[in-house]
Amino acid sequence: MRLLTPGPAPFQAEVPMKATSHTDPDFRKTMKRLQDALQQVFGVSGFTAALTGSGSWGGEVACMNFLDPTKKALVLSGGLFGARLAEMARLRGAQVHVVELTGEGKVPWGLLGDALHSVKPDLFFCVHVDTSTGTMVPVHEVLEFVRNASPYTLSVVDTVASAGNVPLHLEGLADYAFTASQKGLSAPAGLAPIALSARGLSHARPASWYGDLTRIWEFWERGKYHHTPAVSLIEALERATARVLEEGIPRREKRSKEAYAFLREALRGDFDFPPEEVAAPTVAVLFPKRESPEAVLARLEASGFRVAPGIGPTAGKAVRVGLFGSQAEAVQDLVEALLGVGA
Amino acid sequence: MRLLTPGPAPFQAEVPMKATSHTDPDFRKTMKRLQDALQQVFGVSGFTAALTGSGSWGGEVACMNFLDPTKKALVLSGGLFGARLAEMARLRGAQVHVVELTGEGKVPWGLLGDALHSVKPDLFFCVHVDTSTGTMVPVHEVLEFVRNASPYTLSVVDTVASAGNVPLHLEGLADYAFTASQKGLSAPAGLAPIALSARGLSHARPASWYGDLTRIWEFWERGKYHHTPAVSLIEALERATARVLEEGIPRREKRSKEAYAFLREALRGDFDFPPEEVAAPTVAVLFPKRESPEAVLARLEASGFRVAPGIGPTAGKAVRVGLFGSQAEAVQDLVEALLGVGA
Repeated sequence: MRLLTPGPAPFQAEVPMKATSHTDPDFRKTMKRLQDALQQVFGVSGFTAALTGSGSWGGEVACMNFLDPTKKALVLSGGLFGARLAEMARLRGAQVHVVELTGEGKVPWGLLGDALHSVKPDLFFCVHVDTSTGTMVPVHEVLEFVRNASPYTLSVVDTVASAGNVPLHLEGLADYAFTASQKGLSAPAGLAPIALSARGLSHARPASWYGDLTRIWEFWERGKYHHTPAVSLIEALERATARVLEEGIPRREKRSKEAYAFLREALRGDFDFPPEEVAAPTVAVLFPKRESPEAVLARLEASGFRVAPGIGPTAGKAVRVGLFGSQAEAVQDLVEALLGVGA
Repeated sequence: MRLLTPGPAPFQAEVPMKATSHTDPDFRKTMKRLQDALQQVFGVSGFTAALTGSGSWGGEVACMNFLDPTKKALVLSGGLFGARLAEMARLRGAQVHVVELTGEGKVPWGLLGDALHSVKPDLFFCVHVDTSTGTMVPVHEVLEFVRNASPYTLSVVDTVASAGNVPLHLEGLADYAFTASQKGLSAPAGLAPIALSARGLSHARPASWYGDLTRIWEFWERGKYHHTPAVSLIEALERATARVLEEGIPRREKRSKEAYAFLREALRGDFDFPPEEVAAPTVAVLFPKRESPEAVLARLEASGFRVAPGIGPTAGKAVRVGLFGSQAEAVQDLVEALLGVGA
């Protein structure tokens, strides 16, 4: 079965696990190498780490450190994952305001500016690529806009479906960014790589022991014991991230973009796509014109391809294809499978 | 380097990771097999699962679901891990009362009874084996005592350093139990196996999206998407747990007990131990009589053994040795390394 879901992405088959202790001096070196590599992935010079938990936990950790019932959060949401961040923020008792992307997936700049002005949020959340819709926001413009309109707001970015496959330059723009190991970094699931600015660290007031960013900082930077991390996954992520950087993120982005363009062109007669200017190259969302999404999924499954159904705003309407890393190389075969049997 | 720390325990070297999707039908079957195996490990007939996170997160999830500022918690604490549960409960704003084990590591039954009577706690926490002291409480007697004195109190048990290596019969006694994958289950670190009673599930009021036990139940029991779990670790834990049950937990317990008794007898002249009646067979805590713990650790490291320093109440005073699973088989070599060069 070839895995073309929007996560997990395939990773190099040979990642054997061995029992290493989190106190092993060699493991400390692996952690340090991973931190350096993650600085390049996020485009930051500050603190990075990999939390033991899913990407969603990476997002909730922001709520657990920066929000409480006295705080206000503003979420720029364009799908299921923006809505999820809003829900996590509400669970912390914060006052939560949501600005939705337009129906076409574009940023409503006027509404965003008004909301920043009227809400004066303590925390701003945005999702770089929402895998439920396969649309991407111009994250640097959005973060600059927020920084200019509201310099004291902390900014948090979900880069789950972009990091490792799209260049990020978040230095000075994001106070906290998180991703998941199993997408653009081509590693096994179970870790949430994060980047945290010095300002973010100084604002952390934890409501969770496990998600306490100050202790996580002490553990990764000073070796002070906090919890037992997923050592084998961290070792695998360090190797996977080294390979990503060896290849180069711009080259990975180019491959995804080309694969996406090929898919769009080849399937034009049979499928609709999100508008070209907002479509993310890492997650292609296809709306079948003549078949049900279930029929498309079943046909692909029979041809040995696993892709994903729509979720959130695209539930029952679309199929979602991941084009992370080596998945992009399978796109020609996928098109043949889609067109050869179908329509 | 032979790993005799109190976690991670060695696991079978050949646990290759492959990219499986959490939506794969075969993975759903793996999850089901793991749930069945965990019922046997915890000795329960109700819901079990493996959270993607460390054992500590397994403990905090109890606080995230069962506590809020209107609730009262009572913690029976005998070391660092009891204190940690108390701290997690305080972070939720709950009123927290702590009853300490005696200096010898015994349960102060009178004080415990008084506290249950006066506090009337919503939640009771206890740690079966505290790895910081290597002492074990008679968990079934404690839980029965709590159930009789305060039938409406939910009971939570930390079985991090016992599950898989000591038979547990928690049916009707514990509402929530948690452990860690890398100890008695001989699997890679990064998962917190849990057991949750029907009463526990009905009391869950989540303060965390990621740790929401109702959604975790829906994901494991009904296949309703929640988050992307650490698929490779779950596959490895399923295989490891099957091997544990194939061997039989009573037989694993016997091996640990024999190894512990051998260690105690062989080292009597050079080390002190916790009182025999409270000593846990899975974690041996050795207080050197003539050397510093650092010197003992360094000597063992030079002989190719990694054990752990004391932490919490034993910090700077002891070395801690794990006797989980196959670690027990190395005990004779360990004794030779300790006596051969030492004293």
